[in-house]
Amino acid sequence: MKRLLCAASCALFALPALADEGMWTFDNFPSAAVKAKYGANVDQEWLNHVRGASVRLNSGCSASVVSSNGLVLTNHHCVRGCAQQLSSETTDYLKDGFRPAKREGEKLCAGMQAEILQNVVDVTARITTATAGKSGRDFVKARDAAIAMIEKESCAGHEDKLRCQVITLYQGGQFKLYTYRKYSDVRLAFAPELRVAMFGGDPDNFNYPRYDLDFGLLRLYENGKPAATPHHLRWSTANPKAGEAVFVAGNPGSTARLETVAQLETLRDFVLPDTLFMLSELRGRLIRFSEENPENARIATTLLLGVENSYKGERGRFEALVDATQMKAKRAAEADLKAKVKADPKLAEATGDPWSELAEIQTERAALEKPYLWLEVRAGYRSELFSYARSIVRAAEMRGQPDSERLREFTEARLPLEQKHVLDARPVYPELERLTLEFWLSKLREGLTADAPGTKLFLGKESPESLAAKLIQSKLGDVAVRKALWEGGKAAVEASDDPMIRYVLATDAASRAIRKEYEEKVTGPTDRASERLAKARFAVYGLGVYPDATFSLRLSYGAVEGWNEKGTAVAPFTTFPGLFDRATGKPPFDLPDRWIAAQSKLSSKTVFDFSTTNDIIGGNSGSPVIDAKGDVIGAAFDGNIESLGGDYWYDGSVNRTVVVSTASIAEALKKIYRQDRLVKELIAK
Amino acid sequence: MKRLLCAASCALFALPALADEGMWTFDNFPSAAVKAKYGANVDQEWLNHVRGASVRLNSGCSASVVSSNGLVLTNHHCVRGCAQQLSSETTDYLKDGFRPAKREGEKLCAGMQAEILQNVVDVTARITTATAGKSGRDFVKARDAAIAMIEKESCAGHEDKLRCQVITLYQGGQFKLYTYRKYSDVRLAFAPELRVAMFGGDPDNFNYPRYDLDFGLLRLYENGKPAATPHHLRWSTANPKAGEAVFVAGNPGSTARLETVAQLETLRDFVLPDTLFMLSELRGRLIRFSEENPENARIATTLLLGVENSYKGERGRFEALVDATQMKAKRAAEADLKAKVKADPKLAEATGDPWSELAEIQTERAALEKPYLWLEVRAGYRSELFSYARSIVRAAEMRGQPDSERLREFTEARLPLEQKHVLDARPVYPELERLTLEFWLSKLREGLTADAPGTKLFLGKESPESLAAKLIQSKLGDVAVRKALWEGGKAAVEASDDPMIRYVLATDAASRAIRKEYEEKVTGPTDRASERLAKARFAVYGLGVYPDATFSLRLSYGAVEGWNEKGTAVAPFTTFPGLFDRATGKPPFDLPDRWIAAQSKLSSKTVFDFSTTNDIIGGNSGSPVIDAKGDVIGAAFDGNIESLGGDYWYDGSVNRTVVVSTASIAEALKKIYRQDRLVKELIAK
Repeated sequence: MKRLLCAASCALFALPALADEGMWTFDNFPSAAVKAKYGANVDQEWLNHVRGASVRLNSGCSASVVSSNGLVLTNHHCVRGCAQQLSSETTDYLKDGFRPAKREGEKLCAGMQAEILQNVVDVTARITTATAGKSGRDFVKARDAAIAMIEKESCAGHEDKLRCQVITLYQGGQFKLYTYRKYSDVRLAFAPELRVAMFGGDPDNFNYPRYDLDFGLLRLYENGKPAATPHHLRWSTANPKAGEAVFVAGNPGSTARLETVAQLETLRDFVLPDTLFMLSELRGRLIRFSEENPENARIATTLLLGVENSYKGERGRFEALVDATQMKAKRAAEADLKAKVKADPKLAEATGDPWSELAEIQTERAALEKPYLWLEVRAGYRSELFSYARSIVRAAEMRGQPDSERLREFTEARLPLEQKHVLDARPVYPELERLTLEFWLSKLREGLTADAPGTKLFLGKESPESLAAKLIQSKLGDVAVRKALWEGGKAAVEASDDPMIRYVLATDAASRAIRKEYEEKVTGPTDRASERLAKARFAVYGLGVYPDATFSLRLSYGAVEGWNEKGTAVAPFTTFPGLFDRATGKPPFDLPDRWIAAQSKLSSKTVFDFSTTNDIIGGNSGSPVIDAKGDVIGAAFDGNIESLGGDYWYDGSVNRTVVVSTASIAEALKKIYRQDRLVKELIAK
Repeated sequence: MKRLLCAASCALFALPALADEGMWTFDNFPSAAVKAKYGANVDQEWLNHVRGASVRLNSGCSASVVSSNGLVLTNHHCVRGCAQQLSSETTDYLKDGFRPAKREGEKLCAGMQAEILQNVVDVTARITTATAGKSGRDFVKARDAAIAMIEKESCAGHEDKLRCQVITLYQGGQFKLYTYRKYSDVRLAFAPELRVAMFGGDPDNFNYPRYDLDFGLLRLYENGKPAATPHHLRWSTANPKAGEAVFVAGNPGSTARLETVAQLETLRDFVLPDTLFMLSELRGRLIRFSEENPENARIATTLLLGVENSYKGERGRFEALVDATQMKAKRAAEADLKAKVKADPKLAEATGDPWSELAEIQTERAALEKPYLWLEVRAGYRSELFSYARSIVRAAEMRGQPDSERLREFTEARLPLEQKHVLDARPVYPELERLTLEFWLSKLREGLTADAPGTKLFLGKESPESLAAKLIQSKLGDVAVRKALWEGGKAAVEASDDPMIRYVLATDAASRAIRKEYEEKVTGPTDRASERLAKARFAVYGLGVYPDATFSLRLSYGAVEGWNEKGTAVAPFTTFPGLFDRATGKPPFDLPDRWIAAQSKLSSKTVFDFSTTNDIIGGNSGSPVIDAKGDVIGAAFDGNIESLGGDYWYDGSVNRTVVVSTASIAEALKKIYRQDRLVKELIAK
């Protein structure tokens, strides 16, 4: 395969970026370059239109408003958790799909919040002033306190409708205050069957050609009624055309394109392998758990599919980083920046040597990573009961403190979302809790070793199995119990005899101590060095670079296009007949009966899924794919396998976004699901 | 921690090796160096004595003869599989231990063969002549044919008592014919409870201090009676002393110390991670399977513990290879050899550039590795039914061909062991078969991708689950069915309607085709280049180097010694009181009741486990640890966590062998198990 080795960091060298690289902020979009390459006219009006209809879901997805009554298009895999939570042993919305007969049958997605960006203000100077002269944890604390103050002040008096969030850009080179219109009553409006939304399952995930109807519809509510959303995207039923310009507006979660080689080596040698070993074992436990009986399979669906998706993604990222050619390009890019900084004595003095600093931090990081992960970041790994208990215990303590002293997720501006997490009702599955707790505790012991102080504190003389059996006796699955503790505050928490609350009370100081140490020795120094690196980059390359992804709104441009896979051309489109050809009748290549029955009715010409050159990453799931007119033509739901290096570089020759077309969704809604009500709302305008 | 960075390949530079490095063949043991360092007198008589009592177990372990009636000391984990196979739903010899009241109660270990080395002859010239001028698969074929002929000829007429095997040394620099006295009737004589043999379970595995009574006793039989073994080691009940010289005689399985940096990078970047991802998921499946009910836990014990041991070992090896300092030392050693070869024009011409050749082969290897593993090496992964079917199908075909055309494991000299594998009775567990087959097929699909020809052949339109359900209907678990097919040959096999036989018949051509391709493009060129590299190494450094491990008899020397673990001294000895201190009562830190009851009777001064500086590796498990007098003072059962880099280098400052003392075994046999009969046989001589 011929790979264009611009890769590593084209954007760092040239303006405009070669190929279609870049996750651009709306206030720094390269419209001129796009006009020159595609003839598309991305003016301020176009940008405002698209921004106003682009939705961020706090669950880690993107979406778009597609009707005037709050209807929102996203991916099925973004509403999978919700559909499962709304199901029961007798009603399975994942297996059968969710199709309420009337609008009134739409149901609340627990914990879900939708956010639409309204306004952006640069607050870099304020943060920089607050952190001047500080280092280590003092720096982290001062920065977070300044962020908390800005977020609190800026939304004061409007907390019910707005969310204010300071977004970090360019690794701390910029900070911007994003003000969002928030909707905390989000309901599931429609979901197809999992089997067709994720046809091909894990084997087809990140692969192409693809045949997934990976969409779901949500609706925003206000005061118990559908929200009025005059600002929305028009739904296109036209097939996308090869070569046409397309735009993806969404919230890419996280990339590491601006990280140094030393940081990437830590990812390659320690972080990614460790994560992959862990995910593989959890996957194995969950696969077997699911095989035990249909109810286990049902309750483990979301978790297992999430773990498999993470595994495949992280594995692709690991394989990208062991590619010596790509790493060589990274090294060359780093050497280029270093040389240019060195050539300018003033800049060299202001910059210092962040590369060596970051390289040195990797030793501390390697030493602290495991306890930091197992005792803090992954504490209670995927256990809902543990997560509730920790939120309750921490919130009770934090509310007695000023913002500047709180853990960042418990500052005044962020507490409402934490509260929603705790107080929205959703099922907890004790046997799945047992599995996740046993897993976490056994991995904690393995990661830290049996004799480590952390292991002794978190496990004591128990085995992972015996301790998990005790902890799942917790009553925190009951929303009324959580509410009483949340509202009862510190006194109620300290008086509680709930085993999970007691467990978190006994261990949380250790979790926070390691977090503090990590912030002092790793986060603080890393962010400080990265900030100087960012400034050096601006000085050398100007603002014609885009920031790493930080789950904030971005726009990417590209074209509908296939690619050349090791000598074989991959066409950008798939169709319904291809889906039926691929079906074997055995999972995960089986289809719902209603699909098999409707086969002859479906248009053989409609584009089902398609691929584009847009530069996206996880978090972009559900993003509207928009044509030059500003109409939505699909929902991005995946990247091809080659796109997994996208965390570190963009390779325009093979990196592709995978999209389900609005045309095929409309076809299915009409002919298979007979959703006249929704079709009318979406299309017949 | 201060690490002595001689590491990478001290032995390549100096004679004698610094530290206690080396897995020496008996015919090239550095007695003079040992005499100088330890004052121990390892003369020919000593060597003959030890060699004559050293046992290789075909299951991948080592052992020693310790009485005149065929009693053999090895590790519990070397007889674990046997103890499980002899158990049933109502009798669990792993849980309860195996203690026959009389000698007549000893039971056959299915498939097990014990081998004692009798004679060594150099056959390098014969192999070299046979392969002259050949390359690729032709080379592999010619070499294997020459080996098969030598093995067949040399044991002709004595096949019932002898096994002839050509051993590859120095990566093909030498070939030697090893003639073994073989015992194919090996019975289990004694095993303690798994809980005390493997106290601390996976968390303590590869760790130290350690408290494991990891021993088991086997007995060699001839003509249904205990074999007469006048040649055996004397059993010491004295405590080992700090600093005393000790020797380990055993069969280290495999090391890669002479491999080039390019080869090690392939291990680091592809082979080890891929293996670890696989093992982790299988581990997860098995853990959950074991939790489903006690019978599942029982039947999965050996497999799960084996997988966990492999995982921890491979992970340690992976972590060793991502250590940049050690790899730098490897690069330096490689550069030194290259420079010395280059400095001698004649040698340079004869050597060529095997380093570049081996580097280039890595590309082919990366491309072929996955199909080669999943369709051939790991085909049917851990499924007994598949393994039986493949042996039967291949043997039936191979027996019609001359040795030179056969797969190497089916040549005349090797067929008896294959036959023993197939015809010895042992239980097959259908539900465990289902698990392993599902796992293999799902990983095959994942590794090759859903659309690969290999996936289409091996899976067709089935899912891993539906195909496994069909295959476990096989009747090959019944030894009579296997016998009929084995003896019926090709006609019986082709007429069989057994689903596993049919499956192997339908897929085996593809397995063998990828094996052939791999031999042509990877094995052949690798072995050819390695051979020239070995010759260059001899030319430059002389014979003062030891060969990489190849599961053949070696002797290592060292001393009883602890080490310094990141600033903390680790003592070389543990005792019984330490065991009871560590016990929590919860698995895997729980003890059998009989141990708890006997606590006060056990000598608090007896050394339980101890550590030594000997250079060993997997395959050495069960090896006698011998004092300067030639008496056995323990059985090596593990290395510390730092020893896991031992595949690639030996670091004498921290690499330690972990041993269970014969003194503590005697104490337990006397006071806990009251095995007067065995104690008398072992000790009262």
